[in-house]
Amino acid sequence: MKNPKRFLHNPIKLSPPQFLALLFLFLIFIGTCLLKLPVAHEESISWIDAFFIATSAATVTGLASVDPGSTFTLFGEIVILFLIQVGGLGVMSFASLVVIMMGRKISVKQRVLMQEALNQPSIGGVIRLVRNLFVFSISIQLITTFFLSIRFVPELGVYKGIYYSVFHVISAYNNAGFSLWSDGLTGYVGDPMVNIIISFLFITGGIGFTVLVDIWVSRRWKTLSLHTKVMLISTLIINVVSILLFYLFEFNNPKTLGMLSGAEQFWASYFQGVSPRTAGFNSIDMTSITPDTSLLMVLLMFVGAGSTSTGGGIKLTTFVVILFAVGAFLKGKENPVIMKRTIRVAIVYRALAISTISLLFIFAALFILNYVQKDTSFMVIVFEVVSAFGTVGLSMGLTADLTIIGKIVICVVMVFGKIGPLTLAFSLAKQSKENIRYPDGEVFTG
Amino acid sequence: MKNPKRFLHNPIKLSPPQFLALLFLFLIFIGTCLLKLPVAHEESISWIDAFFIATSAATVTGLASVDPGSTFTLFGEIVILFLIQVGGLGVMSFASLVVIMMGRKISVKQRVLMQEALNQPSIGGVIRLVRNLFVFSISIQLITTFFLSIRFVPELGVYKGIYYSVFHVISAYNNAGFSLWSDGLTGYVGDPMVNIIISFLFITGGIGFTVLVDIWVSRRWKTLSLHTKVMLISTLIINVVSILLFYLFEFNNPKTLGMLSGAEQFWASYFQGVSPRTAGFNSIDMTSITPDTSLLMVLLMFVGAGSTSTGGGIKLTTFVVILFAVGAFLKGKENPVIMKRTIRVAIVYRALAISTISLLFIFAALFILNYVQKDTSFMVIVFEVVSAFGTVGLSMGLTADLTIIGKIVICVVMVFGKIGPLTLAFSLAKQSKENIRYPDGEVFTG
Ligand SMILES: [K+]
Ligand SMILES: [K+]
Repeated sequence: MKNPKRFLHNPIKLSPPQFLALLFLFLIFIGTCLLKLPVAHEESISWIDAFFIATSAATVTGLASVDPGSTFTLFGEIVILFLIQVGGLGVMSFASLVVIMMGRKISVKQRVLMQEALNQPSIGGVIRLVRNLFVFSISIQLITTFFLSIRFVPELGVYKGIYYSVFHVISAYNNAGFSLWSDGLTGYVGDPMVNIIISFLFITGGIGFTVLVDIWVSRRWKTLSLHTKVMLISTLIINVVSILLFYLFEFNNPKTLGMLSGAEQFWASYFQGVSPRTAGFNSIDMTSITPDTSLLMVLLMFVGAGSTSTGGGIKLTTFVVILFAVGAFLKGKENPVIMKRTIRVAIVYRALAISTISLLFIFAALFILNYVQKDTSFMVIVFEVVSAFGTVGLSMGLTADLTIIGKIVICVVMVFGKIGPLTLAFSLAKQSKENIRYPDGEVFTG
Repeated sequence: MKNPKRFLHNPIKLSPPQFLALLFLFLIFIGTCLLKLPVAHEESISWIDAFFIATSAATVTGLASVDPGSTFTLFGEIVILFLIQVGGLGVMSFASLVVIMMGRKISVKQRVLMQEALNQPSIGGVIRLVRNLFVFSISIQLITTFFLSIRFVPELGVYKGIYYSVFHVISAYNNAGFSLWSDGLTGYVGDPMVNIIISFLFITGGIGFTVLVDIWVSRRWKTLSLHTKVMLISTLIINVVSILLFYLFEFNNPKTLGMLSGAEQFWASYFQGVSPRTAGFNSIDMTSITPDTSLLMVLLMFVGAGSTSTGGGIKLTTFVVILFAVGAFLKGKENPVIMKRTIRVAIVYRALAISTISLLFIFAALFILNYVQKDTSFMVIVFEVVSAFGTVGLSMGLTADLTIIGKIVICVVMVFGKIGPLTLAFSLAKQSKENIRYPDGEVFTG
């Protein structure tokens, strides 16, 4: 795709990422209006809160300036679910699916857009991929809803039990982190079934569609793509490390793990170790965690989930590529090598660009929030901003205290976190031919 | 220099950076013992505090767990000055100068060591460079001591006035930031002469010896090296931006700029905008700055001064190279181009490695300090750690409250900040020939 703009025959000449961003803003606008309808809420809600919740749902973040469970009616909650499903499965893939179901052939223009949304290096197979992903996603959601109902129906009754199962399955699969309980999943901290189902869903949704498709098609380790192998191994490593560190930082904290039994401590460590990279559910009170756990979670939230997933952050592979580039430099090698495959310079530069621009964006948000949120601890602000960037949704309590400017800033960060790294990764990475090759220059660093 | 080890005929086969690190540790050890002598201090001082002050002086950081002015005798203060001068002008350059002055020829082995310490790409001219730097440094220090004495002698008397001038000139030129006043330079916040002389010294010492030599030799803009041009322009830009932001964040803070006159506000903004990148002097109370100023200073302290300077941080050019690499990626160019010179991939990877490893090191320190310094604000801890890494010496007040483990961690960070980026930049950047070129692999990021 040397010049995707040639395929866009829209009058205002939007580039694919601009089109994607516009669709997202449109989704948020629709969501805001629907949530502001009297039929959507039981308690009155301001425009800024409707906008905030709509943005949080569409970007599958899960930060909530009002308690969703007690504020919204069934209609309002279904609007939120709709925003989550559309935002999570991807504005682009969803739009293309609607096209497919309507029996119309997908146009080249739409394929280009989807290619960006789905993070696929070539157009070929995109349509099939999207159809597979949709069928797969809905199947997973139906099956897990059934199992979660077995847990919730006896406790909450048939209607409420099934509804709560549907809501939390959609929220978990799309890594949204919204919960109908005002204290999240803290009531189920030691419940194996809830822990397993919810974490299975957000890990599946967060590892990336290409990985899932690859596993489905390849089935054997040897034939898996490099990306899939890297994702599987690094997900395993970062999750194990996070679980152990969470336990280490919290086991003698009387407000969190300290008050739990052995089995509950296991499940809580497992859940809170795996969740922060983008899911955003909590089974532990986030306002009581130790400073080290806060710092750990900030790092995990920044790194985020997999490419082509429902999650956010700079992405786990971006982080891995940077670590391998540093490792290659330390070993005096010219290029990083992962599993006997050379990582091209362009990929390293892309990872550097995504990380650096994300950091600059986060720091800009920190400066504004530091200014408008007086007397708020710096860690609480950092936690909130990085949570928004990683579309995670965990909070140390600032969300409810945000000023109007604070809410707008967090909304901008959520939208950037959702589409920024993706846009950077695929719309701007097109190499232009340079006519002039300038002579090398020496700059000392370090 | 394919294999510098061949030139090292020491029995334990130390690599040049290991040798440099060992010399540094030896300097700190000597300093600790001297400061612990009864003749060195007026009030009793613990071993850990003697170690802390020696490390802070040798790494030209300026963090002080005890007040230097009231704790140490004249002898103790001269030990500190000695550590600052040796650590600032560089263990290696100083050692070679001693050799030159003793009339002995410099050996190839020592030249290799100096090459690393002085960040020079070739051995040629190293001896001349070091001699020039020594003559230049002492001349600058003598001249500015004279001018500063004009200011201090009428106020403090002849003896004390000259001594205070000598101390603060050496401290400023070496970017050490140590002051004999317990409140730093806050007593001279609006004094033009003190502001100009001190800032002239730390800017000169902080811009890098190669830049100074280049200006001295070239004299015309056109013939300056790329590195010199980049340093001059980026130093100007980052200083102007820092001064404006400091004023913006503090002008209505009644505890800092708010209580000062217009002229004092100008000098304070100028001084505190320029100082944080490594000098570490303060003319404003650091415990009263706004959260945004703290954040700004953390960023400036991380970036730091110039390569081959008396300062620390990842270095300004490292930061510039990363920004240009990101800019090149956004423009779809293959390599960053600065002033019609291509920046090689190896330089970008080196900048990436220095930044990433520094960040990992800082985060490791944050985790430990978060744990051992109970009930301390996260910003105060971040400020302290980054100040130590950048060998800056500004503190929001934590230094005096550090536990023993906290002091040890900060000492390790100071030593890493002083020799880490330098070592990374020049000992590990030697490209090894790879026999196998693995096929390219695709990893999705973002
Ligand atoms: K989320
Ligand atoms: K300093």
